[in-house]
Amino acid sequence: MPRQDLKYIRIADSIEQLIRKDLLKIGDRLPSLRSVCVEKMVSINTASQAYIELERRGLIESRPQSGYFVSYTHKRFNNLPAITRPLMATMHEDVEELYASILRNAGEAEILLSSSLLAEELFPKAKLNKAIMEATRTLPDSGLNYDRLGNKRLKRQVAIRSVKWGGKLNAEDIITTAGCMEAISFCLMTLGKAGDAIAVESPTFYGILHSAKKLGLNVIELPTHPVTGIEIETLKHAILKKRVKLCLLVSNYSNPLGSCMPDENKRAVVELLTHYNVPLIENDIFGDLYFGTQRPSCCKTYDESGMVLYCSSVSKTIAPGYRVGWIEAGKFKDQVSRTKYAHALYTSSITHEAMGNFLENGRYENHLRKLRYLLYRNSLMFLRSISEHFPDDTKVTQPTGGMHLWVELNERVNTVDLYNLAIKYNISIAPGRLYTLKNQYNNSMKLSIGMTWNSRIQESLKLLGQLA
Amino acid sequence: MPRQDLKYIRIADSIEQLIRKDLLKIGDRLPSLRSVCVEKMVSINTASQAYIELERRGLIESRPQSGYFVSYTHKRFNNLPAITRPLMATMHEDVEELYASILRNAGEAEILLSSSLLAEELFPKAKLNKAIMEATRTLPDSGLNYDRLGNKRLKRQVAIRSVKWGGKLNAEDIITTAGCMEAISFCLMTLGKAGDAIAVESPTFYGILHSAKKLGLNVIELPTHPVTGIEIETLKHAILKKRVKLCLLVSNYSNPLGSCMPDENKRAVVELLTHYNVPLIENDIFGDLYFGTQRPSCCKTYDESGMVLYCSSVSKTIAPGYRVGWIEAGKFKDQVSRTKYAHALYTSSITHEAMGNFLENGRYENHLRKLRYLLYRNSLMFLRSISEHFPDDTKVTQPTGGMHLWVELNERVNTVDLYNLAIKYNISIAPGRLYTLKNQYNNSMKLSIGMTWNSRIQESLKLLGQLA
Repeated sequence: MPRQDLKYIRIADSIEQLIRKDLLKIGDRLPSLRSVCVEKMVSINTASQAYIELERRGLIESRPQSGYFVSYTHKRFNNLPAITRPLMATMHEDVEELYASILRNAGEAEILLSSSLLAEELFPKAKLNKAIMEATRTLPDSGLNYDRLGNKRLKRQVAIRSVKWGGKLNAEDIITTAGCMEAISFCLMTLGKAGDAIAVESPTFYGILHSAKKLGLNVIELPTHPVTGIEIETLKHAILKKRVKLCLLVSNYSNPLGSCMPDENKRAVVELLTHYNVPLIENDIFGDLYFGTQRPSCCKTYDESGMVLYCSSVSKTIAPGYRVGWIEAGKFKDQVSRTKYAHALYTSSITHEAMGNFLENGRYENHLRKLRYLLYRNSLMFLRSISEHFPDDTKVTQPTGGMHLWVELNERVNTVDLYNLAIKYNISIAPGRLYTLKNQYNNSMKLSIGMTWNSRIQESLKLLGQLA
Repeated sequence: MPRQDLKYIRIADSIEQLIRKDLLKIGDRLPSLRSVCVEKMVSINTASQAYIELERRGLIESRPQSGYFVSYTHKRFNNLPAITRPLMATMHEDVEELYASILRNAGEAEILLSSSLLAEELFPKAKLNKAIMEATRTLPDSGLNYDRLGNKRLKRQVAIRSVKWGGKLNAEDIITTAGCMEAISFCLMTLGKAGDAIAVESPTFYGILHSAKKLGLNVIELPTHPVTGIEIETLKHAILKKRVKLCLLVSNYSNPLGSCMPDENKRAVVELLTHYNVPLIENDIFGDLYFGTQRPSCCKTYDESGMVLYCSSVSKTIAPGYRVGWIEAGKFKDQVSRTKYAHALYTSSITHEAMGNFLENGRYENHLRKLRYLLYRNSLMFLRSISEHFPDDTKVTQPTGGMHLWVELNERVNTVDLYNLAIKYNISIAPGRLYTLKNQYNNSMKLSIGMTWNSRIQESLKLLGQLA
C-alpha cells in the first residue's frame, strides 16, 4: 500500500491542512485520541500513529497527562529583541516611587500581567493546607521553638533535587531562608561593602537592584542577550575596568528577559569569575520551570571552588506566602550563616516543614509537571496574541522556560503611559523602566504568563496591542 | 477583744514566725486557704483575712489564680552590680567564634540558663496548633500568596494592645516582620550608614551588636544602670562628642542587665534625642513580662514627633519559631517599608494570622498572666539560690520583669572558663563577654529564668556557685 493511502497518514494530512490554514492555531489543544477514533472510525492505534506522525513533522507536541497541541505556526512570530545595550552612565535615577505606586495599584487589577507570580487558582491549596497540619504534628516542638539548624526535611529535599541539575549539594550545607529575596539579600550583605561594584544582567528584577542600592553597592548593568544571557566578554571587561567585586545572575529564565545561559556559558562564567576571585550569587528561582524535557544546569553545576552562592525558593512554583527559600553558599557558608543570624536569627519552621514534607513524595513533581505545560502553552498563546494584535514592529522574547515575556514596542511608545492607560481597563503591566536604575527601557514592558489562559486575557492582549 | 487575740491575727503571727525563722522561704507557695481552714479550724473568711494581713505586712504576695507566696526574706540578697562603665576604646574585638560555639553547644545542654528564651513546656502548644489550622481557613488564600500589606488581624491586635502602655498606635502604621531581630535589622539598615555612630546600652544583646557591626556601624556602648537603664547625661555627651546618629535601647527589662527605665527617663531620652534629631530604635520585646501590677510605658509613649521606631515581637512570650514581630517606625514608616521590601519582600502569613487570632480572644492574656507569675517566682528562687550558694561577693540584679539575671562574680573569675566547666555538667550559662564588642564583663554572666523551676535547677545553681 502506498504510504499516503495508510489511514493514519490520511488523518495526519487532514490535520496538517487545518494547521496550515490556521484553523487550528498554535497553542490549540488537539481532539483526544478517543474522539479521533470515533470521528474517523479508526482504531486507537491508528489515531495514535497519526499524532506521532504529526509530532514527527514538527507540527504538534505531546505533553504527558495533558494531551497533544499545535506547536507550529506558518506566521512568523515577532522578532526577538536585540542584545540589550544598557546605558553606561553612572548616574542612577531610582524609580522607588513609580515602583511603589505600581505595586499598590497593580495588585488590585483584574488582569494581572505585571508580576512574575502564579495566579492563586494554580496552587494546590487543599494539599498544602494538609501539609501545614502535618507539620504541626511531625515537628517535635510543633514549630514553636527557634529552628536553629534550618529545617532538616527541606534541606534534604533541596539536596536530593539538586541532582537534577548536576548540583550534588549536601543537605548540611543548605542555609534556609524566608524566600529567595532574603537569600540574595544575605549574600549581598555578606559579600558586598558599600561602594563595591556588582555586575548584573540588564534588565534585571527591581527588588534586586533596590536591595543592592540600599546596601550602597555600585550596580553595573551589563549587556544581556535575550536567549543566552549575560555577555561574557563585557563581564570580563567590567571585572577588569570597573573592579567588579561581586556578580549576580539569574542563569535560567532571567526576570524579565527570560534568557537561559547555555551550559558552555555557565561554565565559562564560573571559570572567569573564579579566575578573578569574584563570587557569583546565582538566583535559580525559575530553573524548575523549563518548557522542554530537560532541567537546565546551573552555574553552580560547574563550581569547583565554592565561588557560587546558589539561591532559590519555591516562591515561583507553589506558595510564595510560605516564604521558603535557601542558599548553598559554597565557601562562604559560615559567613552567610552569621549574616542570617545577625539579621533574622532563624526562619519560621512550620511552613518550611510543610514544604519539606510536600517535596518528599511525588506531590511537588506532579504539580510542576502540570505547571510547566500550562506555562509553555501560555507562552505560545501570548506570542500568538501579540503577533496578531500588536503593531508589526513589536519585538518579543520567546523564552524556553519561566513565566514572563519581555516586549519591546516602537520607540515612541512609553510603557509608563501605557501602564496608566491599561490600568484604567483593569489590566496591569510592568513598564520596562522598573528593571533598571537608569533612564532606559522606556518602550519595553514585562508580561507575566502565570495564570489560567482565558478569553479575558486574550481580549486584554488585544486591547493592549491597540493601546500600544 | 484586743487585736492580738483575733483569730486571723494569731494565724498571721504564726506564719510570720515561720517566715522569719526561714522555715518558709522567699518564693515558697503558702498553703491554700482551704487547708488553713482545716488545719486551724477557722472559717474561710478568717483564713483569707490572715493572708490579707500578711500581705499588708509585706511578707507575702497574692497572684491571681496562682495563690499566695512568700515575698520576704530577712537575709540580704546579694548586692546589685554598679552602673556599668564600659571601656571607651574604639577597638572592637568580636567574639563571633565564641558566640557561635556557645550557641552550638548551649542548645544541647540539659539545664539551659544561657538564652533568654522560654522552655518548650511553657508554650500552650495544643492551642497554638489549633490557631495554625484556623489560619489556613480564615486567610482567604490559606496564606499561599504574598502577604503584601502585612497581616491585618495581627496589626489590629498590636494597635489595641499598645493602649496598655499608652502607645495609641494605628493598625495601618504597623509593619510586620519575621521577629524582632528582623525588625531591628530593618531599622538599622534604613537609618544607619556605614561609619555612623550608634549608641546602645552596655552590656547589650550580642545579636544587636553583631547586626550593627555587620552594617559597618560604629557601636558606642554606654554606661547603664542595672535598675534605671542608660545614663542620660552620658548619652547626651555621646551625641555631642561622638556624633551619634542613631540610638538603640531596650527600655524595659533590657537584655542582659534587666534595667527598666523609669517614666521620667523615657520621657527625657525622647526629648533629648528629638532635640538632636537622633532616631531611637526601641526594642520592647520584654515589656509584657512585668512582675508588678502595671505594664511599664515605653519611650514610644512619649514620642510626639515620630522619632521612635518601636520594635517588638511575641518571641519572648509565646512562640519564637513563628517569627512574628513588628515595627511602628514613626516618621520613617515609608523608608522602613521599602527596606523590608528590598530585603525580604513579605512575611509568612500563616503564623502571623495564627498569632493575630490568638491575640484576639483572651488566650494570650491568660498565658501572659501565668507566665509573669512563673517568671517572678523564678526570679525569687534564683536570687535565693544565688544568695545561698554563691560566694558572698557575688553581685546580682533584681529585675522587676523580663527573663534573666545578670550576675557579677569576683574579678578573678572568668565566666568563659566557668562556661566551659559548667557545660561538662550539662549546664549552659552565657558569659558576659558575649554582651559587648570589647574585652570586658569577663567576670559576669547572664542566667535565664524562663523555665519551670525544679530541683535540678536548684542543684545546678548550687554547683555553679561552687564552681564560681
